[in-house]
Amino acid sequence: MSLDSFFDPDSIAVIGASNNPKKLGYEVFKNLQRFEGDTYPVNVNEDQVLDRKAYNNVKEIEEEIDLAILIVPAKYTPDTMRDLGEKGVNAAVIITGGFKEAGREELEKEVLDIAEENDIRVIGPNCVGIKNTHKKINGTFIKEAKEGNIAFISQSGALGAAMIYKTVDQDIGLSKFISVGNMGDVDFSDLLNYLDKDDDTDAITLYIEGIPEGREFLKAAKKCSKPVIALKGGRSEAGSKATSSHTGSLAGSHEVYNAAFKQSNIITANNFDDMFAMARAFSQPLPKGKNVAILTNAGGGGVLVSDKIDELDLNLTDLEDKTIEQLKEVLPSMAAVTNPIDTIASARGEDYEKSAKILMDDKNVDIIIVVCVVPTFAGMDEEEHAEGIIKAVNEKGNKPVVTAFLAGEVSEKASRLLEEENIPNYKSLDGAALAASALFEYSNK
Amino acid sequence: MSLDSFFDPDSIAVIGASNNPKKLGYEVFKNLQRFEGDTYPVNVNEDQVLDRKAYNNVKEIEEEIDLAILIVPAKYTPDTMRDLGEKGVNAAVIITGGFKEAGREELEKEVLDIAEENDIRVIGPNCVGIKNTHKKINGTFIKEAKEGNIAFISQSGALGAAMIYKTVDQDIGLSKFISVGNMGDVDFSDLLNYLDKDDDTDAITLYIEGIPEGREFLKAAKKCSKPVIALKGGRSEAGSKATSSHTGSLAGSHEVYNAAFKQSNIITANNFDDMFAMARAFSQPLPKGKNVAILTNAGGGGVLVSDKIDELDLNLTDLEDKTIEQLKEVLPSMAAVTNPIDTIASARGEDYEKSAKILMDDKNVDIIIVVCVVPTFAGMDEEEHAEGIIKAVNEKGNKPVVTAFLAGEVSEKASRLLEEENIPNYKSLDGAALAASALFEYSNK
Repeated sequence: MSLDSFFDPDSIAVIGASNNPKKLGYEVFKNLQRFEGDTYPVNVNEDQVLDRKAYNNVKEIEEEIDLAILIVPAKYTPDTMRDLGEKGVNAAVIITGGFKEAGREELEKEVLDIAEENDIRVIGPNCVGIKNTHKKINGTFIKEAKEGNIAFISQSGALGAAMIYKTVDQDIGLSKFISVGNMGDVDFSDLLNYLDKDDDTDAITLYIEGIPEGREFLKAAKKCSKPVIALKGGRSEAGSKATSSHTGSLAGSHEVYNAAFKQSNIITANNFDDMFAMARAFSQPLPKGKNVAILTNAGGGGVLVSDKIDELDLNLTDLEDKTIEQLKEVLPSMAAVTNPIDTIASARGEDYEKSAKILMDDKNVDIIIVVCVVPTFAGMDEEEHAEGIIKAVNEKGNKPVVTAFLAGEVSEKASRLLEEENIPNYKSLDGAALAASALFEYSNK
Repeated sequence: MSLDSFFDPDSIAVIGASNNPKKLGYEVFKNLQRFEGDTYPVNVNEDQVLDRKAYNNVKEIEEEIDLAILIVPAKYTPDTMRDLGEKGVNAAVIITGGFKEAGREELEKEVLDIAEENDIRVIGPNCVGIKNTHKKINGTFIKEAKEGNIAFISQSGALGAAMIYKTVDQDIGLSKFISVGNMGDVDFSDLLNYLDKDDDTDAITLYIEGIPEGREFLKAAKKCSKPVIALKGGRSEAGSKATSSHTGSLAGSHEVYNAAFKQSNIITANNFDDMFAMARAFSQPLPKGKNVAILTNAGGGGVLVSDKIDELDLNLTDLEDKTIEQLKEVLPSMAAVTNPIDTIASARGEDYEKSAKILMDDKNVDIIIVVCVVPTFAGMDEEEHAEGIIKAVNEKGNKPVVTAFLAGEVSEKASRLLEEENIPNYKSLDGAALAASALFEYSNK
């Protein structure tokens, strides 16, 4: 069965919706009020929730229900699932905890058996919920995420929640968020298969601790037509011990994981920041190779990006002779016209534009990394440099371009201009280099 | 001669101060107006600068001048230096560029010779200036930095400037900022020796491209009684080529640098973020060893920090039996009482306090890393967890504690509370692990 009812429902019932601001059922129902479809609160103790008529039981709702979100105590969950079955609901997100993770495997099995008997797909239990930003569905007790094109699947609810706040802070847009919890039913491979066909998703990120369905997961990842970027917790022996063991999990060391992931075209991230940095790169076209040109107005930026791309096994390319000649013509005499191209601090936006265009016409260049740091002349701003790059990309956009305008508030406007044109901007030099590396790794699969 | 006149002057003259907001001389003079000592604008073309009487020549100022900041064109710099000599000024920051870096080695030599003849110490030329936040001296055209206890020396003016904005953004406090430019006179070793005795500085960070005075630098670093954390640009062959070669520079590969740095107790950073993350750790006492305990309310946080400390060669310690017994008494039955200690999401601030105290009394624990992620119950906030940790540190603060309250805006208040108590908080799990690693590396020198 498709997972459409989870992410594109017409109606949602919240079982355990509450008027008490200290209850999760309050937060979840409140957060769903931006959804343009119908939402129904169900709570045997309330007549109204947020001025909406509350139902004692989901079966009392006259309209059809596509998705139910459960925040009732664990012990009431089996009965609630039976009610959902009678009502004909086919999708349930069970936020409630207190199942397998609390030693109550029997109770979890009972819930899942009822689900299967009644054709109900389940996300959870013991999760923080799901989001579809494009449909304004925030079926969690966490803040709204920013709309975007990165799907984020998390096996840790708490870290998933923390990362939602971080993506908002860092202006990173998400398409879907799925906290998989105990993965009683819907698992990584189901989600990969679904997101592969999701028009709103261009890249898929995962935080993984254990994979009970190892082979299927790797198969789904390999089949997936979109970049899959995974952060694996428990890579070290210490970390692995810290992960609670999952029966049937894909076992093994960091190396085993890395090899298996690589074979299935999964890009491995070392931490959340890197994972999102890499995912954001895929708004760009894929490179034909790993030859990088660096365009910078600060020598130090060229040096540090060179170091990082070397570490990442990318190549600081030699430029074609004609490129060097053309750069000499447009840049001041003090500029460095070999790679990294250092325009020096006095370079204006149009110098960036011309240089970027020249680099795009160089057959030795596969990827362009642009660094811009606060020009040292007062009265100049970074917007003109961003606009120069945007013009070059819009006229010639045949090669991937990633940028590092990294100077805090000084770079805010430039960063926004770039992002609006889908050119990913990074607040660190390493972030831009990592993005280039992810693009090459994926293109080279 | 001491460098006191640079960082603790009573009076500052700005040669080339201007009323034109597009000129650096405008920005620098404006930025110095928070300084409580005397500032004098010197400009042959102006009668007044910012409503202050302007002087044609520094010699016309009747009062004594401790420090001069020069932003006059390169060709006028020799004469200006002679004027400073006649006036008896002993410290000059030459922001002006157009010397050695522009192929004008002769001109630079002339300026430095005049300086030597007249007992003037020089920072620069070709730099972005200096700051001493504790004296409200902002002798740069860059925004004010946040007051703090980390000195930051940068060999790249542009990256230095960008990082100032980044530190402000990330609430990282600096004591001094020195853009060394061409290092015509004052160099890394002079600054290390000076900062070693500076009461406002607890840790010293450097961005280095080339070190003309290699041996002296390593000697100064080894002698320094404070942690020195360096980011070296040009570690790779590609990056090294990108660095303009400096005669007599400490040459060699990444490995050679790393070995030399390690021998001189310099902690190596891979990028600016890591450099500042490590520097911030030194508000904590030094650990006796590398045994780490992790206290978390989210399992995933414990897993990922375990992975990172393993990568950094720290040890996820076994706890004493008595610790495990005591933790069992204070934490809920579902909590994990072996390391990492997972209090589970329902833990309150007092649970954090009690657990942290118990860990501080465990002789197997040298360093405590605390992770806190948005508790999954509405109506709870992270401040109480921060306060719990603060209480434990204030009562028992015998061991270093670093924290990762990392959930964007949700963690803002908690982060501020911790920082006010000098407990460094990190917005990433890796940042906290790196901090622990820097503390151990330095303690183990």
